Amino acid sequence: MPPDPRPPEGPTRRILTVNVNATPSVTESIAEAPRAVAEPGVEIVGLTPTFGAPSCEGNVQSYLAAVGVMDAVLTCDQPFNPVIQARFGEHRREGLQELLDQPVVDIPRRPLTSPPSWGAATPGVSTLGRTVPLIEDRLRLAGLMERCASVRASSTSVPDLERDENAAVETIVAEAQRAVEQDRAEVAVLGCGGMAALEGAVHQRCGVPVVDGVAAAVSVAQSLVRLRLRTSKVRAYTSPLPKDLKGFWFGR
Amino acid sequence: MPPDPRPPEGPTRRILTVNVNATPSVTESIAEAPRAVAEPGVEIVGLTPTFGAPSCEGNVQSYLAAVGVMDAVLTCDQPFNPVIQARFGEHRREGLQELLDQPVVDIPRRPLTSPPSWGAATPGVSTLGRTVPLIEDRLRLAGLMERCASVRASSTSVPDLERDENAAVETIVAEAQRAVEQDRAEVAVLGCGGMAALEGAVHQRCGVPVVDGVAAAVSVAQSLVRLRLRTSKVRAYTSPLPKDLKGFWFGR
Amino acid sequence: MPPDPRPPEGPTRRILTVNVNATPSVTESIAEAPRAVAEPGVEIVGLTPTFGAPSCEGNVQSYLAAVGVMDAVLTCDQPFNPVIQARFGEHRREGLQELLDQPVVDIPRRPLTSPPSWGAATPGVSTLGRTVPLIEDRLRLAGLMERCASVRASSTSVPDLERDENAAVETIVAEAQRAVEQDRAEVAVLGCGGMAALEGAVHQRCGVPVVDGVAAAVSVAQSLVRLRLRTSKVRAYTSPLPKDLKGFWFGR
Amino acid sequence: MPPDPRPPEGPTRRILTVNVNATPSVTESIAEAPRAVAEPGVEIVGLTPTFGAPSCEGNVQSYLAAVGVMDAVLTCDQPFNPVIQARFGEHRREGLQELLDQPVVDIPRRPLTSPPSWGAATPGVSTLGRTVPLIEDRLRLAGLMERCASVRASSTSVPDLERDENAAVETIVAEAQRAVEQDRAEVAVLGCGGMAALEGAVHQRCGVPVVDGVAAAVSVAQSLVRLRLRTSKVRAYTSPLPKDLKGFWFGR
Amino acid sequence: MPPDPRPPEGPTRRILTVNVNATPSVTESIAEAPRAVAEPGVEIVGLTPTFGAPSCEGNVQSYLAAVGVMDAVLTCDQPFNPVIQARFGEHRREGLQELLDQPVVDIPRRPLTSPPSWGAATPGVSTLGRTVPLIEDRLRLAGLMERCASVRASSTSVPDLERDENAAVETIVAEAQRAVEQDRAEVAVLGCGGMAALEGAVHQRCGVPVVDGVAAAVSVAQSLVRLRLRTSKVRAYTSPLPKDLKGFWFGR
Amino acid sequence: MPPDPRPPEGPTRRILTVNVNATPSVTESIAEAPRAVAEPGVEIVGLTPTFGAPSCEGNVQSYLAAVGVMDAVLTCDQPFNPVIQARFGEHRREGLQELLDQPVVDIPRRPLTSPPSWGAATPGVSTLGRTVPLIEDRLRLAGLMERCASVRASSTSVPDLERDENAAVETIVAEAQRAVEQDRAEVAVLGCGGMAALEGAVHQRCGVPVVDGVAAAVSVAQSLVRLRLRTSKVRAYTSPLPKDLKGFWFGR
Repeated sequence: MPPDPRPPEGPTRRILTVNVNATPSVTESIAEAPRAVAEPGVEIVGLTPTFGAPSCEGNVQSYLAAVGVMDAVLTCDQPFNPVIQARFGEHRREGLQELLDQPVVDIPRRPLTSPPSWGAATPGVSTLGRTVPLIEDRLRLAGLMERCASVRASSTSVPDLERDENAAVETIVAEAQRAVEQDRAEVAVLGCGGMAALEGAVHQRCGVPVVDGVAAAVSVAQSLVRLRLRTSKVRAYTSPLPKDLKGFWFGR
Repeated sequence: MPPDPRPPEGPTRRILTVNVNATPSVTESIAEAPRAVAEPGVEIVGLTPTFGAPSCEGNVQSYLAAVGVMDAVLTCDQPFNPVIQARFGEHRREGLQELLDQPVVDIPRRPLTSPPSWGAATPGVSTLGRTVPLIEDRLRLAGLMERCASVRASSTSVPDLERDENAAVETIVAEAQRAVEQDRAEVAVLGCGGMAALEGAVHQRCGVPVVDGVAAAVSVAQSLVRLRLRTSKVRAYTSPLPKDLKGFWFGR
Repeated sequence: MPPDPRPPEGPTRRILTVNVNATPSVTESIAEAPRAVAEPGVEIVGLTPTFGAPSCEGNVQSYLAAVGVMDAVLTCDQPFNPVIQARFGEHRREGLQELLDQPVVDIPRRPLTSPPSWGAATPGVSTLGRTVPLIEDRLRLAGLMERCASVRASSTSVPDLERDENAAVETIVAEAQRAVEQDRAEVAVLGCGGMAALEGAVHQRCGVPVVDGVAAAVSVAQSLVRLRLRTSKVRAYTSPLPKDLKGFWFGR
Repeated sequence: MPPDPRPPEGPTRRILTVNVNATPSVTESIAEAPRAVAEPGVEIVGLTPTFGAPSCEGNVQSYLAAVGVMDAVLTCDQPFNPVIQARFGEHRREGLQELLDQPVVDIPRRPLTSPPSWGAATPGVSTLGRTVPLIEDRLRLAGLMERCASVRASSTSVPDLERDENAAVETIVAEAQRAVEQDRAEVAVLGCGGMAALEGAVHQRCGVPVVDGVAAAVSVAQSLVRLRLRTSKVRAYTSPLPKDLKGFWFGR
Repeated sequence: MPPDPRPPEGPTRRILTVNVNATPSVTESIAEAPRAVAEPGVEIVGLTPTFGAPSCEGNVQSYLAAVGVMDAVLTCDQPFNPVIQARFGEHRREGLQELLDQPVVDIPRRPLTSPPSWGAATPGVSTLGRTVPLIEDRLRLAGLMERCASVRASSTSVPDLERDENAAVETIVAEAQRAVEQDRAEVAVLGCGGMAALEGAVHQRCGVPVVDGVAAAVSVAQSLVRLRLRTSKVRAYTSPLPKDLKGFWFGR
Repeated sequence: MPPDPRPPEGPTRRILTVNVNATPSVTESIAEAPRAVAEPGVEIVGLTPTFGAPSCEGNVQSYLAAVGVMDAVLTCDQPFNPVIQARFGEHRREGLQELLDQPVVDIPRRPLTSPPSWGAATPGVSTLGRTVPLIEDRLRLAGLMERCASVRASSTSVPDLERDENAAVETIVAEAQRAVEQDRAEVAVLGCGGMAALEGAVHQRCGVPVVDGVAAAVSVAQSLVRLRLRTSKVRAYTSPLPKDLKGFWFGR
């Protein structure tokens, strides 16, 4: 008989939000944003990989992030449930799903309010053009590409953001507006959190619901905990067979 | 400038779960099930259409249900947010989405824990064979059919269920098992709530996570409220133009 | 042994064209248009729902129409075969298909002349923007979306049409022209009949074959009668189980 | 200004049914079958290619048939409208569509009665296994593969048919039955006509509507004539530029 | 036991490049281009059909080409392995695949360097607009359409090319540039060879890898020979049953 | 002006075949197999990651492999062109494609001889069941899933292979046979090389062409070199921006 899928309530009150890059300041802003939607008594803890790139675009840095994130989570010494991995999944959360049976959530790629019969624009903060194909492939695999009006890149990087927030906000808002007006998007999903100003600004200019990706992820994660759901282990996400890793070990 | 998307917290503590058929006893069991996952202070109210069929299969009864549900919700005299429509959406929730700006949720058709790269079996309680094509089309429109291992019908009806629960449970569990073993499903989603025994039984026999559809819907609904998300009104779900309905009026 | 699929010729000489809205004048124009293509001895009878909206856009009015149409047909006291439901199917003919075994036809969504390897523009008369997603979903379910160059909305409503036909025609023709020139459509399908002027005008300006939707439907319907084909009852369109409807009965 | 798409009624009373192989006896049976559905005054003329294979399976014979059919039609000395090409289109009718502006119809690959939301089995008379992939590709290009429950081959050839009709009928009926019972087909489409016995037998055994492919094609063709529709010439089927063919000329 | 798939090395040193039209000068340029990529000791022989059109666009000429090419290859009196059919497959190589067990290659329709997750522009030399739909259908059948950024037609014909090469090159380069800049193509594939100037010019202007279609085909063909691969004969490409062709025989 | 895409011939004579696991013996067998298809003068060098798992299944080990492979290639001190990454791409070669402009090839996922209109079975040596979903997703992203008859796992691991080759061969051959007989595959692609016995055995038993994955990759790679093609750098595979990696550096 399989293990009872219903974990004790205990550890379920701490949500881990793992940054995909090795920049603690970003980790902080990622963990801060969703606190507004946390249920009473739920703690949100940010986690920073101990290696990888200070910001992630493209495949090389993304694979480093995938490993860095697994490493950070495996060496985390507090109980937690579930885990949020920031960003649109282009940094691959499947490794975590094999390693843990707590749910692993990234930015829900179909905006929760989006009708199944309608698409959504996904202008991501700090989504450079080169990252768009990675996100589009994630949508394809989820069967959602046909429903996504467009994935648009604001050529704004996290550093830009820290340098001049207003300019960055303006760039992103303009991109969202193109998504709504030219691509017929009905919802805007923001690629990362930590920008109080942005959400309101996009809504004001575009008149569509705006989804803060990380807050949405936390919110879905809480649902999973309430439903006591675990990652399915029967096939795709079976735990890895123990093997002697060479030249690398998690949490070294 | 569009209305501020953030409704006052007030009304958001009452969730309406609308039955799709005109049988109050079913309404009760539908409203009961998800109470376990309700956040503190959230009230779950069941609503029964004042007309339609005592149980719904196929298209004729489904269109009656679509109208009956709109009628029931429009004549509900208490504030609420959001609305759950039981079942897999084969009874069409789009009308409600036009009429309301509170979110409208039916059974989340991609099980929340299902990896984007893997499908889910959907053995529905009281899903007769004839309803399967309707559900499959909803999955198609959502782009999820490729990811759904199978939609399987237990030829169990709500009456059967009331007559002999054990037999009904056994039928459904057996169907779920076929979905996991023959169709390579990794998650089981149950088409309607109100059966304490069922969820555990499926999990025991199949060893996969089991999603109680209505509880999951309530859980997602609470997320939407926390995120203060509303239905997008820019295109597909614009409010209907006022017209003089002939021979029919809501809440007559 | 199943019933012989070959109905007596008798009733097959009366074609019912059901309007989707409760406006008799529209019913008339809908029934008038296809008379030109009726075979000798075939009578075309228009039917107006006794309830619903005076004109239909969007989901709420569409579900009312679905029920209103079923009601009108079930209470029709003359024999008929087959039934035409005007419009592109966005008002759901599946209920009728369950109730009848005569064929039910709506506007053929792949223009009859369109090569399987080429798309068609579908500028619908009185297709407001909000109706486009409904039509697109019908095309998706039929597997024809990839082959449809575009669904374009002339923001012309039936009332507009009655107010100033020339202006309405001009708007629609312009839309059709964009479909041919910008979307590479090779055929134009008109969303509803009753406009002598329109068909010629679109052809003149665009140089493509023009399909009058309702006439085409009648023409296909006659084919079905000649072929003595009935709606398949083995699965999706099984007749509904008799149930005590509450607060509603057809033909009340 | 483009030519008026409405040809004089005159020539429209003669329908050409072109055989794809060079066997006159088959041509006869193909032309015979649909006479039952011909409108009063419509003449159905069979045409036999003067070269090609006595029966066609696979690609080599199919390309010969494509050329043989064009040759036969171009050298036909009577006026006609429209043209039927027997079989499921695996012998490519696109050449004819370039050469003519009369409509060219082959076996309608979505059974006319099939709900857009449901598939159809297509057990073809004298469809050998090797022809199945060709037919499946035609369905793919038409976007109908997802809706086709299955394409099944009765390993019965035209010669078999002439040798022992009863055995051939039995083989085909059994195949149709598998399509309905195992593949959940709701309609059966027969790949070629000329077998009075077959249609009734399949219906008796399977209880689904049975479409005689060639009769259906004739029926659709008559619809096109009534609607005065012509093949679109704006893009895919523009008439071929005149060129000096080398070593080959039509109607030599 | 099936025949050993490993042919003697002998005949494998002669590659046949079959022109699809009956113009020897074109045959020459097609055979010339890939010599640069031929392995030492590999001979590239051009073959011209003895009938068909002097240049091929559209379906009529394409079916003639399909037959002309089979005829030319079957009457070729030297051993060869494999066969290249110029162009993007819109002239159907499947007949040859039935007739031969040597591999038959046309222009590889996914540029060899193109990441599976990214598309390619396919501006074809002498691809007139009318040929685009044929090429798009070939891509659809190969499942590659979603990955192809666009198929663009330079309205340049082979005659134009011979009249004023510079102008032709300029037209094609401009088209390629639109594919890269407007359609986000990352690779350019040229539809036919024989133009030394073109490849460099496209690369210079667009900064993307440029694939000379015929050279790529030859290169792939050599791979197949090295791997000793043959065409699979178990289903789609079984050798045609011998039949008495009427009025036509290969190699007459 | 972009760099001339034509690299000097020099480095192009050394092909790197990178193992995805850290087991040198496997590296050897991977490099050995394709030597039979190497062009004269082409050297094939095997490379073993200095860290990762001794054998790779599933996501965790796959992401380690992605990083381990990048590390090994970046620290390789000899010139090379191009690079082969063994396996079906489930270990992600995109990182390498960003880092290098030499082509990067993994097992060609559409068997080279497979007709665009037909699928291929892909029974992989040492492909455990859990790896199948990863491979299927790679096929999905390449648009080839519809054309792939099936991906079948022989539950044979590399260790098994070394323990008892005959038993392993038998298991794999049996799986291939099911693919051909039950899934209608026409070609068999083997997931990794180094087994002289296997290729012949599968061919003998199944009668279909058998593709040795690694040999095919090498063969395609040589084609790319001959064609002087480089990885496109205009979008998806732009070189990564230089960043200070934290706690990790390639070739440490």
